[in-house]
Amino acid sequence: MAFEKKELKKKSENIADWYNDVVLKSELADYGPVRGTMVIRPYAYAIWESIQEALNRMMKTAGVQNAYFPMFIPMSYLQKEKEHVKGFSPELAVVTIGGGETLSEPLAVRPTSETIMYSMFKKWVSSYRDLPLLLNQWCNVVRWEKRTYLFLRTTEFLWQEGHTAHATHEDALAMVTQAHEWYRQIYEDYLALPVMMGTKSATEKFAGAIATYTIETLMPDGKSLQSGTSHDLGQNFSKAFDITFQNKEGTLDHVWQTSWGLTTRSLGGMFLAHGDDQGLILPPRVAPTQIVIVPITKANTDTTKLFIYIERIAHSLRELGIRVHVDMRDSMTIGRKFNEWEVKGVPMRLEIGEKEMNDECVTFVFRDGGEKQNLPMKGFVPEIQSMLDAMQKRLFAKQKKHLDDLTFDVSTWEEFTKIMSSTRGFIRALWCEDAACEKTIKEKTKATTRCLPLDAEKGTKQGTCIHCGKPATHRWIFGQSY
Amino acid sequence: MAFEKKELKKKSENIADWYNDVVLKSELADYGPVRGTMVIRPYAYAIWESIQEALNRMMKTAGVQNAYFPMFIPMSYLQKEKEHVKGFSPELAVVTIGGGETLSEPLAVRPTSETIMYSMFKKWVSSYRDLPLLLNQWCNVVRWEKRTYLFLRTTEFLWQEGHTAHATHEDALAMVTQAHEWYRQIYEDYLALPVMMGTKSATEKFAGAIATYTIETLMPDGKSLQSGTSHDLGQNFSKAFDITFQNKEGTLDHVWQTSWGLTTRSLGGMFLAHGDDQGLILPPRVAPTQIVIVPITKANTDTTKLFIYIERIAHSLRELGIRVHVDMRDSMTIGRKFNEWEVKGVPMRLEIGEKEMNDECVTFVFRDGGEKQNLPMKGFVPEIQSMLDAMQKRLFAKQKKHLDDLTFDVSTWEEFTKIMSSTRGFIRALWCEDAACEKTIKEKTKATTRCLPLDAEKGTKQGTCIHCGKPATHRWIFGQSY
Repeated sequence: MAFEKKELKKKSENIADWYNDVVLKSELADYGPVRGTMVIRPYAYAIWESIQEALNRMMKTAGVQNAYFPMFIPMSYLQKEKEHVKGFSPELAVVTIGGGETLSEPLAVRPTSETIMYSMFKKWVSSYRDLPLLLNQWCNVVRWEKRTYLFLRTTEFLWQEGHTAHATHEDALAMVTQAHEWYRQIYEDYLALPVMMGTKSATEKFAGAIATYTIETLMPDGKSLQSGTSHDLGQNFSKAFDITFQNKEGTLDHVWQTSWGLTTRSLGGMFLAHGDDQGLILPPRVAPTQIVIVPITKANTDTTKLFIYIERIAHSLRELGIRVHVDMRDSMTIGRKFNEWEVKGVPMRLEIGEKEMNDECVTFVFRDGGEKQNLPMKGFVPEIQSMLDAMQKRLFAKQKKHLDDLTFDVSTWEEFTKIMSSTRGFIRALWCEDAACEKTIKEKTKATTRCLPLDAEKGTKQGTCIHCGKPATHRWIFGQSY
Repeated sequence: MAFEKKELKKKSENIADWYNDVVLKSELADYGPVRGTMVIRPYAYAIWESIQEALNRMMKTAGVQNAYFPMFIPMSYLQKEKEHVKGFSPELAVVTIGGGETLSEPLAVRPTSETIMYSMFKKWVSSYRDLPLLLNQWCNVVRWEKRTYLFLRTTEFLWQEGHTAHATHEDALAMVTQAHEWYRQIYEDYLALPVMMGTKSATEKFAGAIATYTIETLMPDGKSLQSGTSHDLGQNFSKAFDITFQNKEGTLDHVWQTSWGLTTRSLGGMFLAHGDDQGLILPPRVAPTQIVIVPITKANTDTTKLFIYIERIAHSLRELGIRVHVDMRDSMTIGRKFNEWEVKGVPMRLEIGEKEMNDECVTFVFRDGGEKQNLPMKGFVPEIQSMLDAMQKRLFAKQKKHLDDLTFDVSTWEEFTKIMSSTRGFIRALWCEDAACEKTIKEKTKATTRCLPLDAEKGTKQGTCIHCGKPATHRWIFGQSY
């Protein structure tokens, strides 16, 4: 299936329409038959696999081990932590029939696995020698959604969820901070998306946590996307599930816990941020195909000779670990091929015809813009990795400028409302930390607290709340949620 | 947690008790809170990851791409293929509530994904240029079970399911054969388990397939374990889901399909086959830890110096890609450490004390038996890979002998019943291929047809059925199912 450029909706005109259109046409995903569900097609799944590979490497180096826990959670387990069940109850899918019989206790399909995992932790932990317990699982989870937004909001999604238990609160906090930093690396170094890092307000934090650390990214329309969270669970769950250990001093204590997750939503944020009117733009580091080679043939081209030359180039690049695809389809015009690979956001296109073959050179163009270039093959091959790295940096720098341009230090309510009704973005402003005030701000401007930035303490002066005028200590980040 | 050898049940006395005991004590798995479910703990999950890595490599080389499809299947989809729904209905888990509301159409949790995938294939395939379509997914599936047997029979399990569509039956058959061969490689080359390969009888084949190719392994008690199946689906599903394509001649045709799956059950078969009274024995190729180093310290040992020597050995081995663990726990006796690693089936144990340090040598012992050996470190390190390979071969050879010893060519019903009530094993015998006869054989002997071996045609003479005496053409394999 090939697509004419003219068929694609314009990002510059309607970003939501463009997004759905480009996700479907670039074959990243498709709608599933059940409301709220989607199919992750190979092109997007390959990106998810590269995120898995990167995160697995980080986690395993730190001693986190992968495991797998059952998907079905007895309703009684979910109810053990009061805040937790309150937060997740409205979103549950519930199995009531199994093997043809009505179940005596209905089973929730996991919306997250704290409760099922911690019922096992209780069995496995008895001494400080069993700690830290550092587990992760890659799996599907279900949270019932009324509206679907491909990747960004789906009833079923894929994620990793790390769950750990520690002997001290200090150790648990170090784990939360570590996971938070891993997520920053995934976003900034792999997906080329700069992040805002901080902690959530009391109303926005995870149901059952004492603190939630968040990664927030900024989308092209100035809206904020919650992109990965790490929770300091304190002893909330260990008390609910009675997970105790004998400490070095010989007394019994409840473990300190953390949980942290990154989902396939991350892909959606990346597609949305980097794409343009021509389609996707994929960062080279995670692009399933980094370079596509399109043979340029005319009626009298010696294709055998040309294909041998192309194979030589492809082989030289593959030997360097570059992911290369040669588009050999003979049923499609060159123009349609160009369009298709542009829609799919392949970072670099090589155009190889008789001219290139005779001159032992390559003609190439980057997906993120710029003129066509030509280099001798001998010079091109050794430079390819640094050229792709440079593109990765360009994409990041562009997003960083976007984030910086749309981050405002605001000190009047008038300015706050003006920004939220025009460019949007991140607003840094003093806030009283009162939930009722937060709610009113949301009703008036659609903006919610995104986070208290990690560096907020430094240089912050006591003042008054941007909205209600009550005393305020910290400058929070506000933004409209995706 | 450490275990005394004496605590472990004996494989030689009661294999079922031993199996449950060793799976729990070696921390491979644990029972989940919901009947039929289990937790796959890190030690077993790491083995599953190495199977994933191997199969991914095989599949990707052949152009099979990973994807992810929704877990919830509308009941109406399952009902589109008559045999399929009949086969899976009794085993379904059904979601009837979502987001707090009763669903208008109940959703099955996937027992397998033919129906959900093929509803999408219909959208994606229109021309022979879209074929072959070669997809795979790694996921969880649910088939309601009354009795749980860790890894071997659980309500929820993990697997990969390959699903492909082709322009011709010939192409589809080549794919089925390829997957069948991949599974052989996984079992024989990775899990060190020899296999019996063949096709299932009409009653034993997959619900909706026209033929099922199977891998059967033989367990220590002479029972047969169905270990991986590949299905020739013909056009059954493409007709039910109306998946058509325009062929090269310009006419419309239904695609030819295959599906094939390998599950976490494979781990269970491996544990069951290789273990002994002392615990697990893991084949080196998939063992998460291939070598454990236990420091041998006495009261007056210079541990700093010893640990430097041990670190040197571990480093040299890791540089060769060997998975090494150094057991530094100071809270446990050497004897308990030995026991624990024996129970966990680590292929090789190194014992390094002052003697080894002073002589620059290593003392080692293989988990599958034999005397302790001693080699200079300089000679040991370069030989380690071939020593581990030799152990891998020994494990396979032992199982191969077991399979050969318990495979019987049988020509009288008396001999058939005698074997099935004593040693069990694989019986090769002429059978009429009548379902009623098959059922009676099962009632009388607990034996079912396992497969028609791939090589059955050669040298086979027409004769009479081993049970009913009616004419029979092929020698089938019979065995008692796990």
